Amino acid sequence: MSLLVVGSLAFDSVETPTSRRDDVMGGSASYFSYAASYFTSVRLVAPVGEDWPDEFTKLLETRRIDTSGLQVISDGKTFRWTGRYQPNMNDRDTLDVQLNVLAGFDPVLSEEHRRCPFVFLANGSPTIHMKVLDQIEGSHFVVADTMDFYINTEREALLELLKRINGLVLNDSEAKLLTGEENIVKAGREICFMGPKFVVIKKGEHGALFFTKNEIYVLPAYPTETVVDPTGAGDSFAGGMMGYLAEQGDFDSATLKKALAYGTVVASFNVEDFSLDRMQAIEREDIEKRMEVYRHMLTF
Amino acid sequence: MSLLVVGSLAFDSVETPTSRRDDVMGGSASYFSYAASYFTSVRLVAPVGEDWPDEFTKLLETRRIDTSGLQVISDGKTFRWTGRYQPNMNDRDTLDVQLNVLAGFDPVLSEEHRRCPFVFLANGSPTIHMKVLDQIEGSHFVVADTMDFYINTEREALLELLKRINGLVLNDSEAKLLTGEENIVKAGREICFMGPKFVVIKKGEHGALFFTKNEIYVLPAYPTETVVDPTGAGDSFAGGMMGYLAEQGDFDSATLKKALAYGTVVASFNVEDFSLDRMQAIEREDIEKRMEVYRHMLTF
Repeated sequence: MSLLVVGSLAFDSVETPTSRRDDVMGGSASYFSYAASYFTSVRLVAPVGEDWPDEFTKLLETRRIDTSGLQVISDGKTFRWTGRYQPNMNDRDTLDVQLNVLAGFDPVLSEEHRRCPFVFLANGSPTIHMKVLDQIEGSHFVVADTMDFYINTEREALLELLKRINGLVLNDSEAKLLTGEENIVKAGREICFMGPKFVVIKKGEHGALFFTKNEIYVLPAYPTETVVDPTGAGDSFAGGMMGYLAEQGDFDSATLKKALAYGTVVASFNVEDFSLDRMQAIEREDIEKRMEVYRHMLTF
Repeated sequence: MSLLVVGSLAFDSVETPTSRRDDVMGGSASYFSYAASYFTSVRLVAPVGEDWPDEFTKLLETRRIDTSGLQVISDGKTFRWTGRYQPNMNDRDTLDVQLNVLAGFDPVLSEEHRRCPFVFLANGSPTIHMKVLDQIEGSHFVVADTMDFYINTEREALLELLKRINGLVLNDSEAKLLTGEENIVKAGREICFMGPKFVVIKKGEHGALFFTKNEIYVLPAYPTETVVDPTGAGDSFAGGMMGYLAEQGDFDSATLKKALAYGTVVASFNVEDFSLDRMQAIEREDIEKRMEVYRHMLTF
């Protein structure tokens, strides 16, 4: 089944302890849609400026991602993010953010976008997320991502959004911020009582936890020696997860757990090079092979 | 098969954000031997002062732990540790350490201790560890624990020890310190080339990684809402792991992985109350039940 993602496209400049890259393709929607494209047909809605290069769009289209929802803002500039990773490659400092066209983003969905049965609202304003939900039609399975900035500045809108979605994806510090609860297991459970049927708490290199009101499970990250650039790991995790759910057209408990494992494995590829470079070098078969290794690790 | 542990016994004083306990039973050997006792017969060697209470010894003996190796030092005082946990219950500050009898500890093994086929050298000086190894007889399976203090102050002795043991258990920051390698997967692999056949890197609430020269696997911590006191989690993890190996009398790859899972589950009970309080309330059956839940979490 087709999968809609509404999010950001960006120019990223990334510095690691051993290397740096400037103006590479980034943004939540690029990582998400590329990762999800291994599993299902993806439709992307995101704003860009007139500076957005055709070759970036073409790169997405090589994966059959529908880019008709790319909104080119006249005289606008594309969102820019600059960051530097610490030696541990897990913590990072944001050096510069230029929201540009993202600041005034008003998503307008086409007929086809509105009817996508699976929807991912990538990290963004909950107010904008609700504008998307107001447009979608029919039965939908919606998962949203959020971050500390919106928890702090749009808390009321976020709490309203939580009542309208099936799942929430966020990282551990954000889950603590949202609930005021230091124990991550308690925090996850608590968020389930704020509206979403399930919550995924991402812990970066330490894996992810999954919660429903009655169930918890936990998966470690796939251990990799080659961590070149962790940017987009969370979005490609979500892309692998949602892509698999949309492919299966289902979201029961067993399918969700397998989806989490796929997300984990896809994210482990993403961090092995800058931007989408590593992802461009793999096929679905590579994902399946690593899934088998991962499954074997966790079988005892 | 019987399992020997050489380590410390202590009075711990522990402060958490919501509670505190003074002078409870602590020390690596207490947590380790109690955890291991669910699986096999354990013999404990450790120094204590004249202030060591009989009831602590009796508590260990209720689990059929052989305490004949308890060395009571005349006029000596037992090792004391005082610590305070941060609100995240993972980081802690050591407020006071009084080595006391541990400072001059010279382990002397009895005939029976020398012939134990499974040996755990709990966190301590590698020089002392080698004095133990010099006394053991016949075929042995030896695992040691170490810490930053000894990596910094007795590096040469530690490197010599690594060539004489089957396995090493240490935490993530210690693995980085030992190898100078920030990537934990690279660090683990590198330690395998320093001598031990396998290395276990503990990550506290984030689980553990296992390495041989050709194999890596990773297990998450068992997610628990009830974290009352994490003291001894690493030692009870090692106790569960070594206890299961000794029970099986084997240490092939599949048995080691299952042993790691048992260690994880036993440690998850240990943190649910102060000192050995939670452990005193469980039976092997409780461990098996939680193993089933844990296994189910990781099956997809």
